[in-house]
Amino acid sequence: MAKAIPSRSENYSEWYNELIKRADLAENSAVRGCMVIKPYGFSIWEKMQRALDDMFKETGHTNAYFPLFIPKSYLSKEASHVEGFAKECAVVTHYRLKNAEDGSGVIVDPEAKLEEELIVRPTSETVIWSTYKNWIQSYRDLPLLINQWANVVRWEMRTRIFLRTAEFLWQEGHTAHATADEAMAETRQMLDVYARFAEEWMAVPVLKGAKTPNERFAGADDTLCIEAMMQDGKALQAGTSHFLGQNFAKAFDVQFLNKQNQLEYVWGTSWGVSTRLMGALIMAHSDDSGLVLPPKLAPIQVVIVPIYRSEEQLEQLSDKLKPLVQQLRKAGISVKYDDSDANKPGWKFAEYELRGVPVRLAMGGRDLENNTIELARRDTKTKETVPFDGLVERIQALLDDIQQNIYQKALQFRQENTFRVDTFEQFQEQIEKGGFLLAHWDGTSETEEAIKEATKATIRCIPFDQEPEEGTCVFSGKPSKGRVVFARAY
Amino acid sequence: MAKAIPSRSENYSEWYNELIKRADLAENSAVRGCMVIKPYGFSIWEKMQRALDDMFKETGHTNAYFPLFIPKSYLSKEASHVEGFAKECAVVTHYRLKNAEDGSGVIVDPEAKLEEELIVRPTSETVIWSTYKNWIQSYRDLPLLINQWANVVRWEMRTRIFLRTAEFLWQEGHTAHATADEAMAETRQMLDVYARFAEEWMAVPVLKGAKTPNERFAGADDTLCIEAMMQDGKALQAGTSHFLGQNFAKAFDVQFLNKQNQLEYVWGTSWGVSTRLMGALIMAHSDDSGLVLPPKLAPIQVVIVPIYRSEEQLEQLSDKLKPLVQQLRKAGISVKYDDSDANKPGWKFAEYELRGVPVRLAMGGRDLENNTIELARRDTKTKETVPFDGLVERIQALLDDIQQNIYQKALQFRQENTFRVDTFEQFQEQIEKGGFLLAHWDGTSETEEAIKEATKATIRCIPFDQEPEEGTCVFSGKPSKGRVVFARAY
Ligand SMILES: [Zn+2]
Ligand SMILES: [Zn+2]
Repeated sequence: MAKAIPSRSENYSEWYNELIKRADLAENSAVRGCMVIKPYGFSIWEKMQRALDDMFKETGHTNAYFPLFIPKSYLSKEASHVEGFAKECAVVTHYRLKNAEDGSGVIVDPEAKLEEELIVRPTSETVIWSTYKNWIQSYRDLPLLINQWANVVRWEMRTRIFLRTAEFLWQEGHTAHATADEAMAETRQMLDVYARFAEEWMAVPVLKGAKTPNERFAGADDTLCIEAMMQDGKALQAGTSHFLGQNFAKAFDVQFLNKQNQLEYVWGTSWGVSTRLMGALIMAHSDDSGLVLPPKLAPIQVVIVPIYRSEEQLEQLSDKLKPLVQQLRKAGISVKYDDSDANKPGWKFAEYELRGVPVRLAMGGRDLENNTIELARRDTKTKETVPFDGLVERIQALLDDIQQNIYQKALQFRQENTFRVDTFEQFQEQIEKGGFLLAHWDGTSETEEAIKEATKATIRCIPFDQEPEEGTCVFSGKPSKGRVVFARAY
Repeated sequence: MAKAIPSRSENYSEWYNELIKRADLAENSAVRGCMVIKPYGFSIWEKMQRALDDMFKETGHTNAYFPLFIPKSYLSKEASHVEGFAKECAVVTHYRLKNAEDGSGVIVDPEAKLEEELIVRPTSETVIWSTYKNWIQSYRDLPLLINQWANVVRWEMRTRIFLRTAEFLWQEGHTAHATADEAMAETRQMLDVYARFAEEWMAVPVLKGAKTPNERFAGADDTLCIEAMMQDGKALQAGTSHFLGQNFAKAFDVQFLNKQNQLEYVWGTSWGVSTRLMGALIMAHSDDSGLVLPPKLAPIQVVIVPIYRSEEQLEQLSDKLKPLVQQLRKAGISVKYDDSDANKPGWKFAEYELRGVPVRLAMGGRDLENNTIELARRDTKTKETVPFDGLVERIQALLDDIQQNIYQKALQFRQENTFRVDTFEQFQEQIEKGGFLLAHWDGTSETEEAIKEATKATIRCIPFDQEPEEGTCVFSGKPSKGRVVFARAY
């Protein structure tokens, strides 16, 4: 067996990288900053997609598909939008290769230069609003509730698998509404969908709140977000939902006739989550032995390993275990039956631990005699011998229990690592140890930036569920009406 | 109501374009050759994806994701591959925009030029085989059975929605095997999967066969394909499955230790279907009133329209119809209940006809009295008044019947438009009328090209299920061992 992965306390960052590699989740490709999502990693992403897609459809959205390429002039139409994305764009300038005349190989054909350069979409507001212009004439065409699953490209200089990659996969919702209130309700609704997904599926508790103007999406009037805490105490923004006001409608001249037969600009929202969620999932729950996956997103929920000394014994065990596999599958549980003789049981146990399979069943000769089975759970790393009969119900209940337990553990961790700080000295001391700091802030960008400069902490959000509380800014001493959440972040 | 779409006999090409537009399937975007797939069109594509994905998984494949960008040097490694794709590549040369110094707007930053240009993938063999090199060491790592759902870009000069677009959506399977036989069996298996999908889901009969060397995929030793006949008698290649031999393994040095502990090059396959299938689906079945969709791929299978003269009557009808909606949904049937007062029943009938909803139910006051309902089927455009009781079973059976009927109709059309021709004069005469021509061919590329030059017909495939038959080439008079399928094609 290969050597163990580094422990979290030893080197959190290396632990993350090694875990992704060893659990076969993803790897860096030959193209700088672009990743290959391997089959095991992708099967987790597929489960996320399916659950999210169902939630989008339940809330009235349909999927569509818009072009990968955006004409440069489109990207430029909304001023703050282009400002936000221009520095990290992949630009297509030519449409053909040819053989070099000197026989040195294949080169870009200089005669095949595009009249207007195309940007590989970093996000699709511009191409979508240019399309919506033709789809929206009257209030009867609203609301327009569309989502797309797509790849996007942002030419980040410092990349990290899943957390920040040049190309990533995501969904982007883009909706159009007749009123500001309705658009704001949609913005909030989709944030709630994301929070529900994070908590109920990923078992990751999140804070919901608004970004400060500094941290808003380029082109939005308001950006809402969910923030999760990783095991090193750092924050990870897990999803954002933007209230776009009429900014893109004005940039692309999208107006509609209202019920009073007057022309008005349309109100917009956009919202997205990405393969970054994979990073959050890994970092929120996993331990020094490998992945810990919530059962609802685990590609394999139960692995069954027969422990045998002879072909004959394997056959006896299989006669007993294969009907169990069928019963579990019938109950909607995904099961792997691993009777391969290429590896020993100990190796298999370590391997499935590394891959985060929530429940492991092992059965040997003595179990066969006793009509028992060994049941191990990945989250607590405990095991017990249980009666063979009634296993399906036991496992169904156990999977629910594990899902809850993982969530509770993460929630408790966040609570233990959330601190109210009232002086900048406390702030500076605590931020070195990690965690969320609830502190008063005077509401200015200057103070926000000065704190970031001094501590590398940013305002993760102005939380929704905070009680109003008069106080003074932890940095400037000026008056404040409530605490905001500071943290160092991914 | 807007004017009718052009009829097929009047202008087949315009009929196709207008149908796509009027049924809200897709539209051209501002980026030349790139399409927007609209929600209704996309929901059909989603159903195709789901069915195909299930079939891939049943045959042991898993999904993964590989980068959008391919370094230019990778594309060049397999000689015939780059030859095939170089002429239609979107090339990324820069990674940043900036504000022009003269204030004229946003320009490409000349200082942000990539050292090596990146190609937007036209297909992923090169990037995938460069990755497989690290995944495959021994026969134990084989077979590797991976699929990816992705967007690809081929800078086609003449584009046509769904049939040939610069960007399109597809799946591409890429498998690696220890032996040529196993790779060939996989190539054939996936062709069979495609044929089954085309016939059982799309209700489109297909011919299975091999391409001539001329028409092979760039980099393949053998290309198998399924070919469908459209209503204008032209052929449409609906899916291809390639036996890659060891070509990509050699280009990317992918070797494995076999059971005898010897190094060997790996054998490969790739296979794909794309949003082109949407074009095939539309052109195979639809009529002058609009789309005709097979029930298995119809986003809405049954539409129910209450016909009322007063609010009170609407309520009576709703009391009767809403429980029916629930029962149909419970039976797994997708239903739309359209009681909106924005449009009259006649308008609704035409609209759902245009959109290809397989079954329409309409109920008015008299039906209410008689406990009956009007049932109309889209494929035959017939309607009848039937008892309200027992509707769920009746509709389940009807949907199956429609699925079969559409297939049989397409099959009969193909049979009526397939001709054995034995002289080149017959060939030339018949090809003008359309259809598949079964003719003897001498097996040379010269003859194949001469026939294409003279008639615009290509060899669609050397069909698998053809009886061996001695004969003489319809063009050259040289000996031939069997007939091949000629047609003009999309
Ligand atoms: Zn936040
Ligand atoms: Zn063919």
